Amino acid sequence: MKPVLLLLLMMVITRSTQAQERKRVREYGIKIGVLPTGKENAITDVAGVQVGQVTLNKGNDIRTGVTVILPHAGNLFQEKVPAAVFVGNGFGKLAGTTQVMELGNLESPIILTNTLSVATAINGVISHTLQQSGNDKVQSVNAVVGETNDGGLNDIRGRHVTEKHVLEAIQKARGGAVEEGNVGAGTGTICFGFKGGIGTSSRKLPASLGGYTVGVLVQTNFGGVLQVAGAPVGEELEKFSFRQQILEKADGSCMIIVATDAPVDARNLERMAKRAMLGLGKTGGIASNGSGDYVIAFSANPNLRIPHEAKEKTQTTALLRNDEMSPLFMATIEASEEAILNSLFKAETTIGKDKTKVEALPLDKILDILKKHHVIRP
Amino acid sequence: MKPVLLLLLMMVITRSTQAQERKRVREYGIKIGVLPTGKENAITDVAGVQVGQVTLNKGNDIRTGVTVILPHAGNLFQEKVPAAVFVGNGFGKLAGTTQVMELGNLESPIILTNTLSVATAINGVISHTLQQSGNDKVQSVNAVVGETNDGGLNDIRGRHVTEKHVLEAIQKARGGAVEEGNVGAGTGTICFGFKGGIGTSSRKLPASLGGYTVGVLVQTNFGGVLQVAGAPVGEELEKFSFRQQILEKADGSCMIIVATDAPVDARNLERMAKRAMLGLGKTGGIASNGSGDYVIAFSANPNLRIPHEAKEKTQTTALLRNDEMSPLFMATIEASEEAILNSLFKAETTIGKDKTKVEALPLDKILDILKKHHVIRP
Amino acid sequence: MKPVLLLLLMMVITRSTQAQERKRVREYGIKIGVLPTGKENAITDVAGVQVGQVTLNKGNDIRTGVTVILPHAGNLFQEKVPAAVFVGNGFGKLAGTTQVMELGNLESPIILTNTLSVATAINGVISHTLQQSGNDKVQSVNAVVGETNDGGLNDIRGRHVTEKHVLEAIQKARGGAVEEGNVGAGTGTICFGFKGGIGTSSRKLPASLGGYTVGVLVQTNFGGVLQVAGAPVGEELEKFSFRQQILEKADGSCMIIVATDAPVDARNLERMAKRAMLGLGKTGGIASNGSGDYVIAFSANPNLRIPHEAKEKTQTTALLRNDEMSPLFMATIEASEEAILNSLFKAETTIGKDKTKVEALPLDKILDILKKHHVIRP
Amino acid sequence: MKPVLLLLLMMVITRSTQAQERKRVREYGIKIGVLPTGKENAITDVAGVQVGQVTLNKGNDIRTGVTVILPHAGNLFQEKVPAAVFVGNGFGKLAGTTQVMELGNLESPIILTNTLSVATAINGVISHTLQQSGNDKVQSVNAVVGETNDGGLNDIRGRHVTEKHVLEAIQKARGGAVEEGNVGAGTGTICFGFKGGIGTSSRKLPASLGGYTVGVLVQTNFGGVLQVAGAPVGEELEKFSFRQQILEKADGSCMIIVATDAPVDARNLERMAKRAMLGLGKTGGIASNGSGDYVIAFSANPNLRIPHEAKEKTQTTALLRNDEMSPLFMATIEASEEAILNSLFKAETTIGKDKTKVEALPLDKILDILKKHHVIRP
Repeated sequence: MKPVLLLLLMMVITRSTQAQERKRVREYGIKIGVLPTGKENAITDVAGVQVGQVTLNKGNDIRTGVTVILPHAGNLFQEKVPAAVFVGNGFGKLAGTTQVMELGNLESPIILTNTLSVATAINGVISHTLQQSGNDKVQSVNAVVGETNDGGLNDIRGRHVTEKHVLEAIQKARGGAVEEGNVGAGTGTICFGFKGGIGTSSRKLPASLGGYTVGVLVQTNFGGVLQVAGAPVGEELEKFSFRQQILEKADGSCMIIVATDAPVDARNLERMAKRAMLGLGKTGGIASNGSGDYVIAFSANPNLRIPHEAKEKTQTTALLRNDEMSPLFMATIEASEEAILNSLFKAETTIGKDKTKVEALPLDKILDILKKHHVIRP
Repeated sequence: MKPVLLLLLMMVITRSTQAQERKRVREYGIKIGVLPTGKENAITDVAGVQVGQVTLNKGNDIRTGVTVILPHAGNLFQEKVPAAVFVGNGFGKLAGTTQVMELGNLESPIILTNTLSVATAINGVISHTLQQSGNDKVQSVNAVVGETNDGGLNDIRGRHVTEKHVLEAIQKARGGAVEEGNVGAGTGTICFGFKGGIGTSSRKLPASLGGYTVGVLVQTNFGGVLQVAGAPVGEELEKFSFRQQILEKADGSCMIIVATDAPVDARNLERMAKRAMLGLGKTGGIASNGSGDYVIAFSANPNLRIPHEAKEKTQTTALLRNDEMSPLFMATIEASEEAILNSLFKAETTIGKDKTKVEALPLDKILDILKKHHVIRP
Repeated sequence: MKPVLLLLLMMVITRSTQAQERKRVREYGIKIGVLPTGKENAITDVAGVQVGQVTLNKGNDIRTGVTVILPHAGNLFQEKVPAAVFVGNGFGKLAGTTQVMELGNLESPIILTNTLSVATAINGVISHTLQQSGNDKVQSVNAVVGETNDGGLNDIRGRHVTEKHVLEAIQKARGGAVEEGNVGAGTGTICFGFKGGIGTSSRKLPASLGGYTVGVLVQTNFGGVLQVAGAPVGEELEKFSFRQQILEKADGSCMIIVATDAPVDARNLERMAKRAMLGLGKTGGIASNGSGDYVIAFSANPNLRIPHEAKEKTQTTALLRNDEMSPLFMATIEASEEAILNSLFKAETTIGKDKTKVEALPLDKILDILKKHHVIRP
Repeated sequence: MKPVLLLLLMMVITRSTQAQERKRVREYGIKIGVLPTGKENAITDVAGVQVGQVTLNKGNDIRTGVTVILPHAGNLFQEKVPAAVFVGNGFGKLAGTTQVMELGNLESPIILTNTLSVATAINGVISHTLQQSGNDKVQSVNAVVGETNDGGLNDIRGRHVTEKHVLEAIQKARGGAVEEGNVGAGTGTICFGFKGGIGTSSRKLPASLGGYTVGVLVQTNFGGVLQVAGAPVGEELEKFSFRQQILEKADGSCMIIVATDAPVDARNLERMAKRAMLGLGKTGGIASNGSGDYVIAFSANPNLRIPHEAKEKTQTTALLRNDEMSPLFMATIEASEEAILNSLFKAETTIGKDKTKVEALPLDKILDILKKHHVIRP
């Protein structure tokens, strides 16, 4: 065996070992909230939703990527979905906000990437849309692109994400389990001082509460005082924002995508989006001044699709009454909290730009703390 | 001793015993967050802020009242304060919202009461303002009146609050310790299925972070899955919203008043207000559909007072830069969480309308749970 | 004939003469916009909408009143209607805003009155709602009450509007022609320096554009530079805000109610509401700092009624697509402009508080100006 | 003389003839509003504001460009300016909105271009900012890029605008007179069915009202029923939206930039921005469903610059009181109306993509109409 092959094999082994080591929150017996999860405990539990990711992990300095969420696998421009945006804290560059708010719909894939690559991702979405079959007369498309700033680990000024990466991530999108941690747009992010990344979770309401599914996907890059299922992990690790009266960097951002199959329109989707911030709060996030904390919520319910053009002047839909929304709010909060924690649990120690090293959440210590606080059985 | 007198004496004894028994969160060794409190751990730690309360606890059916927060003790109409409102969930009747949002200031006492007494409280504020010395030409006043619905324990349809009660509460307002639990506007409220009420807390930033104080006062009447300092109290007590797939009433409301002496204008006050909802989330609140969750934030900093009339066309003020806001956000979250918990810890079992009985938070059980979860020393 | 009777007869004659003299805009051949009006050219052209007014014109100092708009004649609490609010300028006391915005519906009559009588009107609405058949368990009602400040002509500090007046106005509400000028909530208002008041107008879209009706009712009390159908009336009369560099009072307010039978939900109603301000702009209004300019829009379409309680968890409705909204926007702009002008054309010279005299729009001069500018045939 | 030179000479002559022919509104004796203009009657009358434009007028199909507005000529990232955004109708792709709204400031040039070139323009702004002296550590920049859709005349799907064009437009920015009509981002736009483009105007308040200047620049691409100084031009030309019950395209967009030297913060800038829509309304615009109507307002007052980093935790500024805002509102309305009209008066007949021809506003007919309506002396 040639040395190079040996090295490659070792890397594969190491990686799979690490993958074994770092599990999702729930695999450690940590339970977030009171509602059951969906099958994959992922945003893709919402029927039709797909996720695609491209990870840029090159050389010493490039730690970034692209994560794509498709509300459905068809032509999104021709069949839009009801959607809303809530701005938790607007220090961010989320593209497409005002049109989603005005028209109450989404007509493109949702792209997550780094701060200085938003424009490239918009161009990717435009290229994708213009080229899609049936869109040859399209002259306007509202790309929804969110970001967090991975400039701590990534040579962000180099703008290494290309349109091709964006198109590739759209291409790769599929249902089922979603890769978490330092992948896609989460490759270079930092959260609560540890390595952050992509995380996901879902809730499936019991039939008596409607039986709907809520799925959340997050890109975590923010600060505060970490709590895991309520336990004061940040304090016990003595690592949190503004500790010892020293201004440790609390800034960063959190992009939160909320999907549901419940038949809810833009107004009630905005209300769901608002609740995702409560889930962020429960992890200890503080939505600091420099944080771009945005929630994009959409309904993937097939009966709610909004055709770009239609003969009928009206569209008939059965929409959930306001009175039925509270369980969906609760599901959104729980899934948001767990998605954030999954992003931290799955993310691995990363060395990036200028040899900066960001440690993964130290799971051994964490598990001890959680035992002490009876979050998991001692 | 006549039997009736004996009974009365016993009631007094019982009551005072209860009062001894029910302490504030922190007196049990429960610590919320990482920042130190102000002297009284109350909204009145913000210099100049005063609170006044009138409790209506009459006969079998009247369990309501009025709580007043004064940003300063002077003529608020002539010397307005910077202020903002954030709507967590707008199923409520908060009066005065749009003018505060438009002009960025507050020109009246803030009144809290029950849902059907908002109009009476507005009239009280108008009477108060028109009568105040120097206001003889005032023809317009923006009363800010919030409410929660105490109709579970109180004969709310009877509209028992009068203008006189409102004026009395204004009259009684003073600094120092604030009475909590079932007093004032919290007399008849229910929170997480237990007796809620008025609660307060504060944070004082260390000098390195600006040294500012943030104080919060809440009127709690909402549902969800109670957590105390992260411990899953609601679950362990098997009492929470949507338990066993049965729709237990999650609805209600939470009024949150945030005061600070930091020199922040309306825009940054709105950002602080937004963070208070994260504190509510940390107690397990879900901002359910039927909840009127509002946050009113103001700066009591004397240098920021806005004169009703002025010779100068401009007003010169030193305002905190955006970059300095994050510690204030953290302080707001912590004080909001603790104020809500104080309202529950201090509230006592109440029997009201139609002999409805709402139990106080069972402190013995709670303390056991908190010990188990290592929130307090076992 | 007794002298008193003679006097009365003369007053009747005088009044009817004046009524003859002051006509609505369109009766003078003035055409606003390009769309046809409804039958009555009033908000009541929207099927089911009713208006009721009580005028308080007592002694020397009381010049105020109440105007009520009912989206339908049934039990509004039990059968709510889709609604939205747009805040043109929020220096006002509009009650009920946040709940309408959150839930997207209206559950009470809309009341207009003076600034310091909002609370009384809220109490009137509560009394009305609690007493209505079928509402015996209602413990919460969101009264929507708007106002403008008639303190220039009215002893506003005297708070002469009573709950009884509000209930009476609700009682008197009916369809058909609407009285305009100094009636109801417009009794004491001032607009562009002339007597303002209540005005109304409507548009009926041709069948090809949907055939829907949009009706508007306004309470005018604001300033700027009056234009009538584009003609610079304010300038030619040398009466407008900030003329000769002197700060003439531009302040005041404008309440605008927009009704439609089009099947539009809260989101698109908010968009219609936003357009009403363009109509205000076309009359020369500037939405000055001190103005409380609010637009409340609702759909009276019977198929869109929202039951307070329902067995079904969803509600099925046929809603107009976004693409079909533009004609409704145009109709809203035109009807708002014409309603404001009608309020001015119909209002009569009034002497009120402290013998203050506010002249009616001088129709003779106006008509000359309009001829000169070819708005009407010379 | 060589034929080529002759041709060039002829083109110059033709062009200068056209330029002579098509004048700005005010040069025809048309007066908009009651306030005096600034020296150039342009946005550049606000001291420090600069405008740069690149026009792409190539071959048969390329009719687009870039217009840049600089709040000041220095390093905008290091010295931000107070700013706000108001969304008149959000069917558009304006980048940078949420950060401006959250932080109340602008840290980049404002770029206007076509709908599908927004991303390219963002990249241009990022390149510009990263390269600027003193910005070598910048890892985040909030580019504010607006657009209208010139796809009627321009091969918009070809995305012909490049980063280089954006950088060139920034480079070319200067004070003084601003080119109007089909230049820069207005090269391919259509307004009221006629050729639209770039327009500008300003107002200078008299000293008694503060003496401040308000400047407006617009990119016009929208529909409705054109009015010029109130005269019903659209109707008389029988060219307007929804004429003859046929759905003529009303859609399009209008970008409006409002600059002032008045010392106003983000909250009051948002209020000014809101008023610009009233100016649009006065030209007959209806903010149709498909319109992206956005107003970006900023203060160029040098005392209000916000340093990116500062030693001091507070910033001291003298800000205009709310009470002083109304004249600025009026100035914004007037300048917006006139800027829109200037864009139409200056724009020339254009043949573009697919040989589509869009006529310029027919000035001869217009002037006759204006004479008839006594807008200009007959």
